[in-house]
Amino acid sequence: MTERIHATYWLETGDDPRRAADVIAGEQSSGTFVALPNETPELKARSGARVERLDVLESVDAPSLAGGMRSQTYTRCTLELSWPIENFGASLPNLMSTIAGNLFELRQVSGLRLTGLRLPDSFAAAYPGPAFGIAGTRRLTGVAHGPLIGTIIKPSVGLSPEETAQQVRELVQGGIDFIKDDELQADGPHCPFDERVKAVMRVVNEHAERTGKKAMVAFNLTGDLDQMRRRHDLVLAHGGTCVMAVLNSVGIVGLHELRRHSQLPIHAHRAGWGYLSRSPALGWDYAPWQMIWRLAGADHMHVNGLRNKFSEPDDSVIAAARAVLAPVMESAPMPAMPVFSSGQTGLQAADTYAALGGRADLIHTAGGGIFGHPQGVAAGVDALREAWCAAIEGVPLAQHAQQHASLRAALGFWK
Amino acid sequence: MTERIHATYWLETGDDPRRAADVIAGEQSSGTFVALPNETPELKARSGARVERLDVLESVDAPSLAGGMRSQTYTRCTLELSWPIENFGASLPNLMSTIAGNLFELRQVSGLRLTGLRLPDSFAAAYPGPAFGIAGTRRLTGVAHGPLIGTIIKPSVGLSPEETAQQVRELVQGGIDFIKDDELQADGPHCPFDERVKAVMRVVNEHAERTGKKAMVAFNLTGDLDQMRRRHDLVLAHGGTCVMAVLNSVGIVGLHELRRHSQLPIHAHRAGWGYLSRSPALGWDYAPWQMIWRLAGADHMHVNGLRNKFSEPDDSVIAAARAVLAPVMESAPMPAMPVFSSGQTGLQAADTYAALGGRADLIHTAGGGIFGHPQGVAAGVDALREAWCAAIEGVPLAQHAQQHASLRAALGFWK
Repeated sequence: MTERIHATYWLETGDDPRRAADVIAGEQSSGTFVALPNETPELKARSGARVERLDVLESVDAPSLAGGMRSQTYTRCTLELSWPIENFGASLPNLMSTIAGNLFELRQVSGLRLTGLRLPDSFAAAYPGPAFGIAGTRRLTGVAHGPLIGTIIKPSVGLSPEETAQQVRELVQGGIDFIKDDELQADGPHCPFDERVKAVMRVVNEHAERTGKKAMVAFNLTGDLDQMRRRHDLVLAHGGTCVMAVLNSVGIVGLHELRRHSQLPIHAHRAGWGYLSRSPALGWDYAPWQMIWRLAGADHMHVNGLRNKFSEPDDSVIAAARAVLAPVMESAPMPAMPVFSSGQTGLQAADTYAALGGRADLIHTAGGGIFGHPQGVAAGVDALREAWCAAIEGVPLAQHAQQHASLRAALGFWK
Repeated sequence: MTERIHATYWLETGDDPRRAADVIAGEQSSGTFVALPNETPELKARSGARVERLDVLESVDAPSLAGGMRSQTYTRCTLELSWPIENFGASLPNLMSTIAGNLFELRQVSGLRLTGLRLPDSFAAAYPGPAFGIAGTRRLTGVAHGPLIGTIIKPSVGLSPEETAQQVRELVQGGIDFIKDDELQADGPHCPFDERVKAVMRVVNEHAERTGKKAMVAFNLTGDLDQMRRRHDLVLAHGGTCVMAVLNSVGIVGLHELRRHSQLPIHAHRAGWGYLSRSPALGWDYAPWQMIWRLAGADHMHVNGLRNKFSEPDDSVIAAARAVLAPVMESAPMPAMPVFSSGQTGLQAADTYAALGGRADLIHTAGGGIFGHPQGVAAGVDALREAWCAAIEGVPLAQHAQQHASLRAALGFWK
């Protein structure tokens, strides 16, 4: 039996839903707007996309998106399509053209969102997945249990290499597990990549030699391919243990090539995710999107955070994190680590832990939640870590704080 | 004086527009949600994004996108921001992270769309732009004036290499200038890329040797980087004159690397454009988007077509085509060729020509408009070409048809 690719959509249509489903299936496989003499029944059976499921959810009076066909009523449904893998082979770029190509602008569509993806084993044979994932990240950081406590260098841009290294010094002395560049920090003349890496790794290495603990620093090497390879090599040569790339900025080929070259975990940033997802009637859910990037090699995937400073609601954040923790497929789990950020403190630890069903295989980054601690950065790091201990042990924060001064002080300013 | 990057947005906000503009500028440069001790006035002056313009357009009662801050009124404005190039250098991937990064999901934003982009000269020094563009495409096809008359192989997928070549045979015998793979056709076992290229180029080369006219065939080589390079080399070795890549499927690094390798024009497909653009309150206008891809090396850019079968209105199509014909920047025009498609016939020729201010530097692809001709494919190609002659000469179609039997017959079925 042929392998098939399954994609699920939230569809809103002014047309008869069955006809709309057939149009989408046709347009994304052997058909087009008009009947074709060469589209024989045999060809269609071999290459046509198949409507696997069409469940009507509700009807509304007005279309979510304009420009489509006019109607009295617009039907919302769950649509599942499948394609034979023979249409394009186990290729992530061509998968994209098929499951998320010329279908969002169809007239039959007044809303379309890709909500799910199920891939056959061939994709796991064709793509490497993360080289480090959860286990490799734990090994490199020496954090065997619980979350990695992390932060982001701020200001995002504008610091010199030495100022960056000074901030890193405070953080590693404070016992931090993970530090990342902001996604806006790249290789400008005020903070050249090479000098930043050298200055930061000097601090990180010195601390590691003295204490045995080496913080993982995700250097943002986003750029053209040669630049990314060269920057990776520099990070590696200076004892660095992570590189960061912005997925929407480099694209699938960029990440795949970086993965092929890299000897370090790839911290994958999702900047631009808003334009792919902010309209509920259009674009992508995180579950199918992150699957593609994990196959291509992402080790860490950003998922925002509970009660974040952005517009994303908590249920969406948790769905994203669960998707990152779920196997890509049964035969190839390709585990990656979700990264929580934005307005985070220890106050979100217990809820995050519970929402993930008691898993703490994650990176929890806080900025103000660490730097704002009245007793300094070390106390900020410690407080966040203790909040997680409390969460994992099922002890209320206030109770746990009785034995932990840093956490006690943190509860005074976290909000 | 430092070079600056300028981006323009359509912004809708429930906040005071000035405050929202400052938040966006801060978030995308040196700032973040909270005041930072290290964000000194000097650092901010050096690295901060600047609000160059903020024009209020109108106010509405309800937000376009949910999840943002609640308000009685939502203000729509034109916002122009600028960044010093020193923040990240002349880098397209890092440009993406900055102008289209973590800003669409801000709470202050109930709608945000990137509408314009102005780049400094450094970008033209850092990126090659199209290697062939309009002049190179005309040279390779021998079409000195007027549009290239083109079509797309259909069914999109399912034909064998020999069946594809048979369709190509009809088309080249009919005098076509340009043929492209559908974006769903890649390298599956029913129609392997190599066999397709060999079968098709045999037909194209034979016809060219006999007649001197060589049709340009855009073979879709979208895939992983090694695959794209290898496929390109095969097309080149077999005398092909064009390759096609799906931009959203390969990403900026993918296109840039293909451009560095390629000795052929790159036909750039925009499949997936719908999820970037279909919500008017979110995402991208085509003008800034196509500029990025042209810098990276796209020779031909899809723009849909007038009175198309999709949901895109005509003014959007024309704005897109004009953007592709406009210079990337004064010092580096990097001309590319717009590609019109979807439900096209000769009936759109005059309107298209007029809307472009009397330019015909374009590829006009028709499917049913050519194949549906009662006198056959050659007559279909001829009718479309004659419709363009009429448009360029300013003669009404019906009048021009009096001297041209193929056009006369076409007017009976074009609609």
